[in-house]
Amino acid sequence: MTEEMQIIYERLSFCFETRKFADLRILLLDMEPADIALYMEDNLDEKEQIMFFRLLPKELASDVFVEIDTDTQERLIKTFTDKELKAVIDDMFLDDAVDIIEEMPANVVKRILKNADPDNRKQINDLLEYPDDSAGSIMTTEYVSFSASTTIEAAFEKIKRTGLNKETVYTCYVTDRKKHLVGVVTVKDMLLAEKSSIIADVMDSNCITVETLEDKEQVALKFSKYDFLALPVIDKEGCLVGIVTVDDAVDVIQEEATEDIQKMAGMLSNEKPYLKQSIWSVWKARAPWLILLLITSTFTSIILANFESKLTPVLYAFVPMLMGTAGNAGGQTSVTVIRAIAVGEVEFKDIFKVILKEFLASLALGLTIGVICFGKIMLIDNLYNAIDIKTALVISVVCAISLIMAKLVGCILPLVAKKIKLDPAVVASPLMTTIVDALALIIYCSISIAVLM
Amino acid sequence: MTEEMQIIYERLSFCFETRKFADLRILLLDMEPADIALYMEDNLDEKEQIMFFRLLPKELASDVFVEIDTDTQERLIKTFTDKELKAVIDDMFLDDAVDIIEEMPANVVKRILKNADPDNRKQINDLLEYPDDSAGSIMTTEYVSFSASTTIEAAFEKIKRTGLNKETVYTCYVTDRKKHLVGVVTVKDMLLAEKSSIIADVMDSNCITVETLEDKEQVALKFSKYDFLALPVIDKEGCLVGIVTVDDAVDVIQEEATEDIQKMAGMLSNEKPYLKQSIWSVWKARAPWLILLLITSTFTSIILANFESKLTPVLYAFVPMLMGTAGNAGGQTSVTVIRAIAVGEVEFKDIFKVILKEFLASLALGLTIGVICFGKIMLIDNLYNAIDIKTALVISVVCAISLIMAKLVGCILPLVAKKIKLDPAVVASPLMTTIVDALALIIYCSISIAVLM
Repeated sequence: MTEEMQIIYERLSFCFETRKFADLRILLLDMEPADIALYMEDNLDEKEQIMFFRLLPKELASDVFVEIDTDTQERLIKTFTDKELKAVIDDMFLDDAVDIIEEMPANVVKRILKNADPDNRKQINDLLEYPDDSAGSIMTTEYVSFSASTTIEAAFEKIKRTGLNKETVYTCYVTDRKKHLVGVVTVKDMLLAEKSSIIADVMDSNCITVETLEDKEQVALKFSKYDFLALPVIDKEGCLVGIVTVDDAVDVIQEEATEDIQKMAGMLSNEKPYLKQSIWSVWKARAPWLILLLITSTFTSIILANFESKLTPVLYAFVPMLMGTAGNAGGQTSVTVIRAIAVGEVEFKDIFKVILKEFLASLALGLTIGVICFGKIMLIDNLYNAIDIKTALVISVVCAISLIMAKLVGCILPLVAKKIKLDPAVVASPLMTTIVDALALIIYCSISIAVLM
Repeated sequence: MTEEMQIIYERLSFCFETRKFADLRILLLDMEPADIALYMEDNLDEKEQIMFFRLLPKELASDVFVEIDTDTQERLIKTFTDKELKAVIDDMFLDDAVDIIEEMPANVVKRILKNADPDNRKQINDLLEYPDDSAGSIMTTEYVSFSASTTIEAAFEKIKRTGLNKETVYTCYVTDRKKHLVGVVTVKDMLLAEKSSIIADVMDSNCITVETLEDKEQVALKFSKYDFLALPVIDKEGCLVGIVTVDDAVDVIQEEATEDIQKMAGMLSNEKPYLKQSIWSVWKARAPWLILLLITSTFTSIILANFESKLTPVLYAFVPMLMGTAGNAGGQTSVTVIRAIAVGEVEFKDIFKVILKEFLASLALGLTIGVICFGKIMLIDNLYNAIDIKTALVISVVCAISLIMAKLVGCILPLVAKKIKLDPAVVASPLMTTIVDALALIIYCSISIAVLM
């Protein structure tokens, strides 16, 4: 937190504790809703939060409510009268209302919907129908639309009349009578045009659109590719049903990156901020993969037990190094490929390009690591454990071969996962580890025993 | 790629190959610059790219050029006449020009600057001064500003007159005579106000700002927190020097997530798209950590060699399982904490909260894993390797203890790294692995030998 913000927070606390509510309101009016929400979460206990929320200037209440964490939202709603609830919900953008409703228990949802404006209620219900990860789930139905024959002047009049309640007015949509999307027009284009021209003259009729059921990650990628402020969402008939705005795309990009990072590290994804997660939800996210990896490690134990009588202690001592190198090398590749798939740089059809690139890179890396490994064994490991040149050579060569094998497994697995419609981040990491560990060990044991015994 | 886009690309190729250039231009006018750039990269060889670029409608040339990859940009510039180069550069937004210049070799930079409009040249030079990861490096100086006493009508006139060349017109900035930022006003506010009112009536004088030298990652976090379309950048005197727009913030968020993912997997970060990276640059990104981890694995080899005479083969066979569990557990935690730091959820001051949470979670997870480990040894591992109950108990308890240790190391390291101003993603992952591996092995060997021998 910045120092400046800390000072403002201290002033808030002072006004709140000394009950200088008029001063408090003046302070609040100058603040961003996100900062007020943060203040409430970090500095007030449950009772104080309820009291503080009632002190918020009316025009801020909804905006702050949207920014507060789910648990506090639920507690607040329970203390609201029906009238208060209606005021907060009706003042919200519909997509924000839907986001909140999705996190609430059934009885709270019922109360929210009962108290919403009938027109809002219908739209909220429609939005709630879309699957969790679809464009429909992050869109809003509050956009500005014109017909193509509207004059610029009339269009501005319409924005003035209805714009206050629209999520964005900067990109407006042009539809025909059947609500088919026929074009997009920006306020910038309208401002630069003559007042008497009509929308059809300034609109762009080749618009990039998304479909209601399109993956929201794909939608976010379109924002990062095309630099738009909003994208229209159409149904299968080409009718405009809503828009997605760039602020929601930003959230999706952040969330999806966090999710992928969690999955790659062998965790189930968890949307709550870390400090708000309960111990139980941390346990739930982490235990499954730990258990699975524990059980699959049986393979390595079996392999080691099988070769038990034949491996010398010297060879045993290098097992962690060998498995570590293979694991790290495979991890580098799988993570690179998973991320490249996620940001749309690589598709399944690129598989041969990817394999070729990884193979060539792994030859170079294998050579490097093999040479350094040999040097390390002769110069460092020899100090505490007498190792002959032949053994050192075998270990180094196996290290290089394992690295190449690990890189190939690491690049093929995520692409195949993607092809068979599994999540590359989930499948590749733990499966990769298990496969690479087992293969590296088999290569090591069989080669070293064949050559050295 | 969508099917629709594939069809458009095929049409482009057809027109290009059959030299139907008029048709080609009509097709191009309907396309997004990013898609045209992608077409050129994926479907044309170097000579064709040069020819194709000259065929682009004038109004598209700059926009497409900005979207092309660096290598192609460099090749194209080399074929441009000075006049062509000037046209492309002058038509670009300044921040895009700066991004391109930063990637070019010195002689190309010289030519670009020589041919830029003198006024643009000065501004580009100023922007080039800012450090690579600062707000200054991603800002543009092309914004709309008013004085507070301007009427709404005059303000709209100014937008009409100058808006075409501004990166955004939707958020405008209010400055005093000395260029101090005194407020922010959105076009939405202006549209909804009376024409005769003045900017001071509708502007917001409490604006969230960023400083020129602020980390661009922090700037991007402000966008995701506050949902702005643009943020003003001020210098130390509070003077407005530029703005950052949300499209640049989206790119920063994507890039930073990719960078963190690369670092966590033990790679140096590489900004180029995966398929465009040379084998040599892949080698450079990956070799350092592989070498370092290879060398630090000496610790585990030394530990194993030290206990060599005392560990039974049965105990040896569980080394990979033990180190694997500790590594996975530590990785889960370090990755979670690193990401929480990156998105601003956790700071160093939260260290005790984090340690407490991880300790409690690790107790629960340690108990789970210990019990399952015991069950697995007695039920599965016993099938191929006779193990008595006492040994199984010791291994399971050590497994649980290592897990708890790994989680604590995994949460403390990134926070300490952050505190001493090192990059948590770089420091924590490989260092964590080395420390956790060595500690887990020492715990295992000493406990099992003390209890069982």
